[in-house]
Amino acid sequence: KGKQCGGAVVFASGYGETGVEGKKREQALVEVCRDLDIAMLGPNCAGFANYIDDVFSFAFLTDERNRKGNIGMISQSGQLCLSALDSPGMGFSYLISSGNGACLRVEEYLKFLVDDPDTKVVCAYIEGVQRVEVFVDALKRAAEKKKPVVILKTGRSKKAVSLAASHTGSLAGSDASVDAIIHKFGAIRVDDIQELLATANMFSILKDYPRVPAFASLNVSGGEAGVTADLAYLDGIDLPDLSDNAMRALKRMLPSYATPNNPLDMTATLAYDPDKFAAAMEIIMAEEKVGAVIVGYTIPYTITDTTPVRMADGIEKVISLPWVKPIIWIPFVEHTKNPEQHKRLLDMGVPVLPPGRYGYKILHNLCRFITYCSEDKTLEFSAPDANIGYSAKSLSEYDSAEVLKQFGVPICPQKVAASCNDLVAGCEEIGYPVALKISSPDILHKSDVGGVKLNIRDEQEAVSAYNEIMKNVRTHAPNARRDGILIKPMLKRGVEMIVGVNNDEQYGPMVMVGLGGVYVEVFKDVQLYPAPLSRIEALDMLKKLKGYRLLNGYRGGLVYDTEACAEFIVKISQYAYENKNKLKELDINPLIVYPQGEGVAMADALVVLRD
Amino acid sequence: KGKQCGGAVVFASGYGETGVEGKKREQALVEVCRDLDIAMLGPNCAGFANYIDDVFSFAFLTDERNRKGNIGMISQSGQLCLSALDSPGMGFSYLISSGNGACLRVEEYLKFLVDDPDTKVVCAYIEGVQRVEVFVDALKRAAEKKKPVVILKTGRSKKAVSLAASHTGSLAGSDASVDAIIHKFGAIRVDDIQELLATANMFSILKDYPRVPAFASLNVSGGEAGVTADLAYLDGIDLPDLSDNAMRALKRMLPSYATPNNPLDMTATLAYDPDKFAAAMEIIMAEEKVGAVIVGYTIPYTITDTTPVRMADGIEKVISLPWVKPIIWIPFVEHTKNPEQHKRLLDMGVPVLPPGRYGYKILHNLCRFITYCSEDKTLEFSAPDANIGYSAKSLSEYDSAEVLKQFGVPICPQKVAASCNDLVAGCEEIGYPVALKISSPDILHKSDVGGVKLNIRDEQEAVSAYNEIMKNVRTHAPNARRDGILIKPMLKRGVEMIVGVNNDEQYGPMVMVGLGGVYVEVFKDVQLYPAPLSRIEALDMLKKLKGYRLLNGYRGGLVYDTEACAEFIVKISQYAYENKNKLKELDINPLIVYPQGEGVAMADALVVLRD
Repeated sequence: KGKQCGGAVVFASGYGETGVEGKKREQALVEVCRDLDIAMLGPNCAGFANYIDDVFSFAFLTDERNRKGNIGMISQSGQLCLSALDSPGMGFSYLISSGNGACLRVEEYLKFLVDDPDTKVVCAYIEGVQRVEVFVDALKRAAEKKKPVVILKTGRSKKAVSLAASHTGSLAGSDASVDAIIHKFGAIRVDDIQELLATANMFSILKDYPRVPAFASLNVSGGEAGVTADLAYLDGIDLPDLSDNAMRALKRMLPSYATPNNPLDMTATLAYDPDKFAAAMEIIMAEEKVGAVIVGYTIPYTITDTTPVRMADGIEKVISLPWVKPIIWIPFVEHTKNPEQHKRLLDMGVPVLPPGRYGYKILHNLCRFITYCSEDKTLEFSAPDANIGYSAKSLSEYDSAEVLKQFGVPICPQKVAASCNDLVAGCEEIGYPVALKISSPDILHKSDVGGVKLNIRDEQEAVSAYNEIMKNVRTHAPNARRDGILIKPMLKRGVEMIVGVNNDEQYGPMVMVGLGGVYVEVFKDVQLYPAPLSRIEALDMLKKLKGYRLLNGYRGGLVYDTEACAEFIVKISQYAYENKNKLKELDINPLIVYPQGEGVAMADALVVLRD
Repeated sequence: KGKQCGGAVVFASGYGETGVEGKKREQALVEVCRDLDIAMLGPNCAGFANYIDDVFSFAFLTDERNRKGNIGMISQSGQLCLSALDSPGMGFSYLISSGNGACLRVEEYLKFLVDDPDTKVVCAYIEGVQRVEVFVDALKRAAEKKKPVVILKTGRSKKAVSLAASHTGSLAGSDASVDAIIHKFGAIRVDDIQELLATANMFSILKDYPRVPAFASLNVSGGEAGVTADLAYLDGIDLPDLSDNAMRALKRMLPSYATPNNPLDMTATLAYDPDKFAAAMEIIMAEEKVGAVIVGYTIPYTITDTTPVRMADGIEKVISLPWVKPIIWIPFVEHTKNPEQHKRLLDMGVPVLPPGRYGYKILHNLCRFITYCSEDKTLEFSAPDANIGYSAKSLSEYDSAEVLKQFGVPICPQKVAASCNDLVAGCEEIGYPVALKISSPDILHKSDVGGVKLNIRDEQEAVSAYNEIMKNVRTHAPNARRDGILIKPMLKRGVEMIVGVNNDEQYGPMVMVGLGGVYVEVFKDVQLYPAPLSRIEALDMLKKLKGYRLLNGYRGGLVYDTEACAEFIVKISQYAYENKNKLKELDINPLIVYPQGEGVAMADALVVLRD
């Protein structure tokens, strides 16, 4: 039964995206497919177009059907597939609208496209994934084979999360976690549809990618060269100064009133003469520090002034030569690009990006792709089990530290004294001065109940502190369990950092690092990254903090032990990864970082387990 | 002589932009024009197009000459004028390429356009202005008559500054100062050519501007609604929840599987039926909190699917009704917009913005324009005299404070003791504990030479501190003039802020405010604003600091005296404004801000005068 039908497309809506009744209908549909062994696309989808085997089952009208190319597109929105098909100059291997993904999910199509040899670039619109392991495995394979994956994932705003739920019934997960995962595995996350399609098409059209993330910009006017300088600056795109040799050679080609520069105002002299334009490109492409050339010019629909045609003529003269480097065209204004000239550039392997800031954002995406190095990263991933308990059980400070110690995390000496006699012996063992704190799994904010006494210098102070803490706790937290008094050494001052873990329900443990207090709370200077981390990844997290300068000789001051801090973060990430089915969250506040060579000290830790 | 010729356009280049020889040629040209009483445009320009009187003297070829409209454009780049003329849907009153502006400068044309009744929106590309007073006066007039002025000013990057110098010989001024001036006077500064033209055109096409800065978004698909939610979130655009009444009314119109929301997925039911689309707009426009409607849909060049036509039909049904609110169309993808549908929308007063993030950035510009309130601001301005000395003369801490005191700035009690006897009397008068510091106009970093002793509690300590300071200074700064020892009271702790003034050569005194130390130096949390300031402007500067929370009950802590801080800033700004021809810079570090009602105290001040 069903053997004659290997697959089906269900375009209709009214299933999982509509609520309880719809979910039942969807479940029934899935069961029919399972019984009949049918791979189903949808429901609530726009179908697919397979340009490799010439199979079309797409629901919407499009202007042009001949779109064969090398972009594999998977989308949880049918409308976005239509946008892609209507975008001039894009060519596809497969174009798939996965809808609710009742049988085959967006992440499974993603993985297919990553593995597919006919697909050079993967382009994905995602509202939420269900099988996180499949999703991350796809990203990992892409990272290893250096295939670009460009992802538009909604869910940055709460509104988008609730819209996704009602649109395709998607679980959106924590946006910060998804973002960190995409970043770690070297995929490119974009902000909107325009950036998605144009970034994918840039990778599709370019025959080679630049070797270095730096560009030379060629423009037809001084005004546009100035605007380009600012655009590059705003998006952090490097336009390196040219060598003296190149400057001299360009100066000879330009009219007397012009000054060579990068960005260059070519003036009409170079722009109108294909041979001179080609010669200028040869000079510029010979520069080692230039990875690619950006040509800045707006292409109108009707070519009245033939400048862009002559520039394309110039490009034609160089594009097959051995010394050629990638060329990328960025207009200044959105425009009805002349279709013939546009096609001619694409055929030569010259992508035409959207104008201005879009173009430079997309160059930024290109730079991230070419500088991503999967070898520096731990590409391990396994998601936490679903459906385990989410109620929380906090460990005491003592137990939290002991648990971490078992996983090789360096902790400070600590003792819990159950009696006043114990305390005196314990303080001797730890060594004065000490800090005393109430030890109780029920008291998270120990200071608030008068449960902390610092800088205790001798036995007499210790005894009186003991009595005072016990009295305070009996008064302010009469029902709390009391394990005794925790004794720890007083720590030297250093730079206070926060290291935390939030165990995302879908994506597993995310390590959070920041400088303590105000820096995290007011300036939001925090980095988030999926566990486990390599040493290089941990150092990168630190370096990306705005406050990193405070660790690194700020105002001629001390250089702090960022290596020890990174090692500590690695250990914490390993603990969190191995305990992803038990851990709910972890908060080390503060971790004190000492000057170079003197290490770090964990002043306080709170482990919260799932119950 | 010359009476027959009122004006001339000099297209040729090779003048002031090329160096010393060119400057001489330009000067000769100016003198000829002066002798013959000819108003000259240029040199090194592309001419002008005057659509009001039908006079064209424009150098470049354009596709379409019939461009009459209400945008007045002035540009220091001819190529940008061409871009504007080639942009579909833009209409101009005047379009002026000012080139080097040897006789008539970019700022003078700007002022003409602000005053011109045929110009509804002013659109300017500026590399640098020469007569700052004229420039700011134009902005001030525009602020008062609420005429939108959209400015693309290069110079954010150092490269753009040097390119401007070689392109039109412009002085670029300090970018931060220009930015602060543009902001204060309510003009809109944009990042690139696309944003410039599209922002100007939005103001040109809209018949009314929204009353409130909040929008309702109508989309054809759930995916695009989700992308819209994130786009609005990323650019801080408010899409308020609709009222229950509106939600119920929309629910009745939508298919059973759809959920109303803002952004709304209209589904095909509303999008394909002009009457239903119009009815939905009526429901949404009746919402008080909605200022305008955003329609999200990509318009292709060839209309295969007629959705955009039907949506335009729906708009046509409402656009002349009394309850209508502004409608703005934002596509998702850059596209060859179908010229007929595009024109139809523009004719109805519906601007079609560039796609995605550009569109939302431009909405942001619209929100800034409608919420700008010139009444809260001191719109006084006069630039410092040119060609006054720039060498610096620092005042001692004592003299700095006395100078500020004359202008009503509250300062702490202070005395300079020339001898040890003086010192003892002075300390009694100020009241122990005191701070003692060497007083010398030659010693800026008093601590570095051992010239500071803090927390002096009695006569004995004072005498020994006196001797020690004198000895240290004789050793470490033997040639410094010594006025004696400055005596000041020890100040209570509070929040430390920095208040400074940098007197921009072109734009005059700019007040700088930030929280002290790391916040300014590492997190760059600083506000800059042109003097003089009103109380509201000073409070706004404080509120815009990321660290403002630290002044305002952070972690359940104290609320600090921001009113007193604002008053202090106002006084400083008045001092700086009145002394703009004498002051070079001013640095108050720290200003200590105390809890509400307890005021502020200036702990240290350094006034540097021009010599």
